[in-house]
Amino acid sequence: MVAPRNPLNLGAAARAMSNFGFPHLRVVNPYHIAFREARSAVGASAVLTNAEEYGSVAGAVADCELVVGTTAVGHRELHHPLHRLERGARLIRSGLKGGRVALLFGTEKFGLSNQDMSHCHWLIRIATREEHISMNLGQAVAVCLYELMRDSKAGPRLSKSKAASSGEVERMTNLLLEALELSGYVNPRAVVATEEKLRRLMRRMKIDPRDAELWQGMLRQVVWKLRSQRS
Amino acid sequence: MVAPRNPLNLGAAARAMSNFGFPHLRVVNPYHIAFREARSAVGASAVLTNAEEYGSVAGAVADCELVVGTTAVGHRELHHPLHRLERGARLIRSGLKGGRVALLFGTEKFGLSNQDMSHCHWLIRIATREEHISMNLGQAVAVCLYELMRDSKAGPRLSKSKAASSGEVERMTNLLLEALELSGYVNPRAVVATEEKLRRLMRRMKIDPRDAELWQGMLRQVVWKLRSQRS
Repeated sequence: MVAPRNPLNLGAAARAMSNFGFPHLRVVNPYHIAFREARSAVGASAVLTNAEEYGSVAGAVADCELVVGTTAVGHRELHHPLHRLERGARLIRSGLKGGRVALLFGTEKFGLSNQDMSHCHWLIRIATREEHISMNLGQAVAVCLYELMRDSKAGPRLSKSKAASSGEVERMTNLLLEALELSGYVNPRAVVATEEKLRRLMRRMKIDPRDAELWQGMLRQVVWKLRSQRS
Repeated sequence: MVAPRNPLNLGAAARAMSNFGFPHLRVVNPYHIAFREARSAVGASAVLTNAEEYGSVAGAVADCELVVGTTAVGHRELHHPLHRLERGARLIRSGLKGGRVALLFGTEKFGLSNQDMSHCHWLIRIATREEHISMNLGQAVAVCLYELMRDSKAGPRLSKSKAASSGEVERMTNLLLEALELSGYVNPRAVVATEEKLRRLMRRMKIDPRDAELWQGMLRQVVWKLRSQRS
């Protein structure tokens, strides 16, 4: 959960996680009073008391091989593939065979920011009435986890190729960004936009863990050379 | 909803109904302060303001042809057929072809009483972890309505992502090789081996045609910079 503000929503999300058997809650930059309050609430579940706190989305998803964002699809233009929950859940279940999967929920008011989303491989949405797409955060968490645990025998299995972890992909992204900055590719006034664009680009590609190492080695050398020539 | 006590749960249930397109909320013997409070809350949905109040379950379901109760299946012995939500939702959908269907939710603490259940044709439960079967009321409503509106056909279409042509991948490979040669990454005595390694690397990744263009632009800039600094 990214920057949740309401302790009741945190508690509700943790409760649904406990109901459906998802023990690992990670909270990024929570509103601290809310986090403390939710944690100390009577009947706070083990999920909540064991929740881990992170200072960034990158840190929270570093050991995950698949990162999926949630959105109500409001006004924003999306730069990511978007699946309905029904389909997304199947893709997540098959992703779980390859490693950890993170499911990201944004703030109550605005959802995930573009910056948050740039860490995601793709997005899911719960299909609601068009006239009322914004769901309560705790209810959205419950519905997503329900769909993940739902008993559907019909899912075709997808190929389970291994993918590099988000932490590795993030390191590659940062090296590439550095090389591009040193090369003058990046407009200094658009660094953040370029960074988000690169992050999405890297996540659209499927990179094998060993290849990720190879890429990092290559990019490191290019960065080193560009730096050394500058001085 | 039978005898709900917490205005937040009433509000949450009404919100989920609005999200998933169920306009008719009937409330039996609500705790009056809660009902008034929920109704007058800022942003109370049309579902809530149009909610009808009844003095008995019998009255509330009088015009319904099918009445389905919800339960977490606690200590009580059940005298009714019990279906998992997945199956129950299918039965409800087919029941809707014949007339009105009522879905009954009990109080936060005790659920539906035996008396309430005696008005039901059968019961559904949401499959949760055995160690934590009791769901938050608002979340249970959201999950049930989601299942009713769920599109089972929204299966996983295998994303048939387009891949860049071999020609494009080859151009990327050549640019990358050049950048690496200029950076001193490539052992001059192993150029051919490195080139083959890169070619295999690039083909292991799945690259979208537009992304291939992006990559070429980036690599061209890096190569240009490395060259210009050499002289």
